[in-house]
Amino acid sequence: MGKVALVERLTDGTACQGDDCAVIDGTGNRLTLINTQTLVEGVNFDMTYTPLKHLGYKAVAVAISNIAAMNGTPHQVLVSVAVSNRYSVEALDELYAGIRLCCERYHADLVGGETGTSRAGMVLTVTAVGDVERDCVAYRHGASHNDLICCTGDLGSAYAGLLVLEREKVTYQANPDFQPDLDGYDYVLERFLKPEPRLDIVKKLATAAVVPTSMIDVSRGLADALLHLCRASHCGCEVYEEHLPIDYQTSRVCSEMSKNMLPVSCALNGGEDYELLFTVNQKDYDKIKDMEGVHIIGYATEEHMPTVMVTPQNTTITLRAQAFQGLEE
Amino acid sequence: MGKVALVERLTDGTACQGDDCAVIDGTGNRLTLINTQTLVEGVNFDMTYTPLKHLGYKAVAVAISNIAAMNGTPHQVLVSVAVSNRYSVEALDELYAGIRLCCERYHADLVGGETGTSRAGMVLTVTAVGDVERDCVAYRHGASHNDLICCTGDLGSAYAGLLVLEREKVTYQANPDFQPDLDGYDYVLERFLKPEPRLDIVKKLATAAVVPTSMIDVSRGLADALLHLCRASHCGCEVYEEHLPIDYQTSRVCSEMSKNMLPVSCALNGGEDYELLFTVNQKDYDKIKDMEGVHIIGYATEEHMPTVMVTPQNTTITLRAQAFQGLEE
Repeated sequence: MGKVALVERLTDGTACQGDDCAVIDGTGNRLTLINTQTLVEGVNFDMTYTPLKHLGYKAVAVAISNIAAMNGTPHQVLVSVAVSNRYSVEALDELYAGIRLCCERYHADLVGGETGTSRAGMVLTVTAVGDVERDCVAYRHGASHNDLICCTGDLGSAYAGLLVLEREKVTYQANPDFQPDLDGYDYVLERFLKPEPRLDIVKKLATAAVVPTSMIDVSRGLADALLHLCRASHCGCEVYEEHLPIDYQTSRVCSEMSKNMLPVSCALNGGEDYELLFTVNQKDYDKIKDMEGVHIIGYATEEHMPTVMVTPQNTTITLRAQAFQGLEE
Repeated sequence: MGKVALVERLTDGTACQGDDCAVIDGTGNRLTLINTQTLVEGVNFDMTYTPLKHLGYKAVAVAISNIAAMNGTPHQVLVSVAVSNRYSVEALDELYAGIRLCCERYHADLVGGETGTSRAGMVLTVTAVGDVERDCVAYRHGASHNDLICCTGDLGSAYAGLLVLEREKVTYQANPDFQPDLDGYDYVLERFLKPEPRLDIVKKLATAAVVPTSMIDVSRGLADALLHLCRASHCGCEVYEEHLPIDYQTSRVCSEMSKNMLPVSCALNGGEDYELLFTVNQKDYDKIKDMEGVHIIGYATEEHMPTVMVTPQNTTITLRAQAFQGLEE
């Protein structure tokens, strides 16, 4: 039983399932959105190469990204940190400096902070609360046949950053006198260590009066995001490899690593990009075709059609999620 | 630097600090309350003697207790579980059965569930969302000189339950053929494994038109709760040992363990009772003196006065928090 099936089985009958946030429907014109993220040391982050300030920033950014992924705006952030005694007060100051910086940048109030103990490394829990106009909320379901599939920013660069960090870590462990050489990798490193939630795109869409028919954030690779979105929307899709936005630094890192590592694999299966993947009705084509930071990468197909990528050689590749297999046998 | 000082330093400048929930002030007559609890295996719970259904129930109960501790009512619950492969699907079904049971009992909708991977045992994060009328919210601050100090239920019994479980665990580890004998300990075991948030008291107070001047839940022992409440309210207090509600089973467990273990120590420093500690104005004395489940245990004293317990022999003991020293050097 895979992860998707398991979550669906466990959360069967809950008021809302499988979207990036819990949606609370009050009485007014706006829906409340809540997302909780728990990051566990050694699983979700590696202290060897994660500066604490970046970790704090990223933890908040990830929770806010889930608010953005429902076309919402964040308002409050709650943080709870469990640490062992090996963390100094100065270390926690650094962590909270990053937490505060991200809250300020995205105009969210830090309304709660709690610190407890852990024997199992650091456990960092961030809850983001936001809202969205009832008529503008974007779920994972909602994409229809012929809707345009769009993504923001570029894909695979966060994974390229991780590859660089892992390479330097291995070299360092073999020879502790070695000084990591991270020059020239600024962009991919920042993408991995300090992602930015795409609230700018949420604003641009609102300004252009475009309501996405469906939306999700790309946290576990494009393939995983497309599969979730198509599954929830009961549609298939075709995306075009040549339209996938991939930064030249990502390509450079791939070619350094191995001749068999393709940049498109990083985009499809890399994860941690925190870009937005969304669909819009064809009638909105003119409004989004020149929107900065938005790329049209394909379109939704009919029910029962597969989720595929078309290569420049016109080969069709059926996509499978590879990023998250934790609960697979 | 102790835990209290550390949390205050880290959360300095946040919109709300040190209460049981984050308080979000919207536009209406009601305040939104949010509390997030993270439970880490090996730190907050021991799988040796924690049935998964009870664990799920307790995780939700603890988050809801924090909503109750601000005189609020829960409405939604979000759960996120990170587990390693050694947990079967059936085990997670059990966990969720407990989660659902507690949500149903306290009329909270389970609006979000997420399952991820962990290499460090189970990490369980529960976020409870509730609300409270603006005029009825109870913070930790707000107690004034001569206010009556009240607590609910009985104290120390959860800790007595933990002592029994730890005793049986040690015996079992020494001799795996040994069958744990838990007969006659039903009450203290249930108190530890399956605590109930005191929403019944929140309702009774509302029915009696009593708004507590301050409130907190007793999660780390009475001493810790009194110290937090007095510190936030800038007052001292006197509580009377003979008025502390202690169940006979708690006393029995203590006498079995050691002749030096006093039931009052369990009440003061035991923790995990999840009862409510609150203060009311003297004018409300008639309304609460016969309220079932509520005990008047003392009164608040003036600023700069100490937090003390008076023994039946009329000795005054200054209280210190002993329960939570995780971040102390």
